[in-house]
Amino acid sequence: MLLPLHTIPHAMFPDTPEAAEAAFYAAFEARSLDAMMAVWAGDDSIACIHPLAAPLNGRAAVAAGWRSMFEAAGQFRVQVELAHEIREASQVIRIVREYLAIGQETEPRPPILATNVYRKEADGWHMVLHHASPLQVGGTLPVRTPPVVLH
Amino acid sequence: MLLPLHTIPHAMFPDTPEAAEAAFYAAFEARSLDAMMAVWAGDDSIACIHPLAAPLNGRAAVAAGWRSMFEAAGQFRVQVELAHEIREASQVIRIVREYLAIGQETEPRPPILATNVYRKEADGWHMVLHHASPLQVGGTLPVRTPPVVLH
Repeated sequence: MLLPLHTIPHAMFPDTPEAAEAAFYAAFEARSLDAMMAVWAGDDSIACIHPLAAPLNGRAAVAAGWRSMFEAAGQFRVQVELAHEIREASQVIRIVREYLAIGQETEPRPPILATNVYRKEADGWHMVLHHASPLQVGGTLPVRTPPVVLH
Repeated sequence: MLLPLHTIPHAMFPDTPEAAEAAFYAAFEARSLDAMMAVWAGDDSIACIHPLAAPLNGRAAVAAGWRSMFEAAGQFRVQVELAHEIREASQVIRIVREYLAIGQETEPRPPILATNVYRKEADGWHMVLHHASPLQVGGTLPVRTPPVVLH
């Protein structure tokens, strides 16, 4: 039996950047490549930067990056905290702190800082950029690190 | 004598994202806080993330970050290479690799990856976001690093 349109789960048509972001992290925790790629915009302008890694540009490269991540690791749990937001009519930038725990870890790792950019399209809001990078400040710096770069 | 309007240097009214980006890196190399803050949009939605550091939000915090950087270090030289671009009518995202040399260094440091976002405003294009992070892939990883984060 087909469901009437109004009963289709809201997340299928993310009508706010917040809904798109919730779908992004839900897909991440579920390690679902299909759900993940549904969050991203449909064109090849998209780009994804995992921490310390080179940028992945276009849908094929972005999907390959998530596939290898989902295959390599166990269960993820992630808590997300908004740090800053830049809102335009059709594009929203959200800077968030991600607190990630992997597998049986009971303590979250040091936070990751991510810039998430969402674009309003005909079928709702979609991610066009994810730039994630380590956030190591103050006491959380490990004893031996690469030389601190100034920029 | 006042210059006629059409002789005012082009860089004062950056009419492309590329011109705004050129002005950004010129201000960085010149260590000019005035020139740097003229590149940024005039409102407090702006955000700047230096490598491994917490986000600086709003003009006062962004300016304080650049001031302390310009005071702390010697001469910078930076080469910039475009890695990817996402163009909208009034907002452009440019992902670049920055090759930085500081002071008397003759070899550039390992590249920094930066997401630069520019917004079209009444007086031209201005930066609204700079998210810079270390790019360490393959052979450039130091022997001892923090545990590699997966996301």
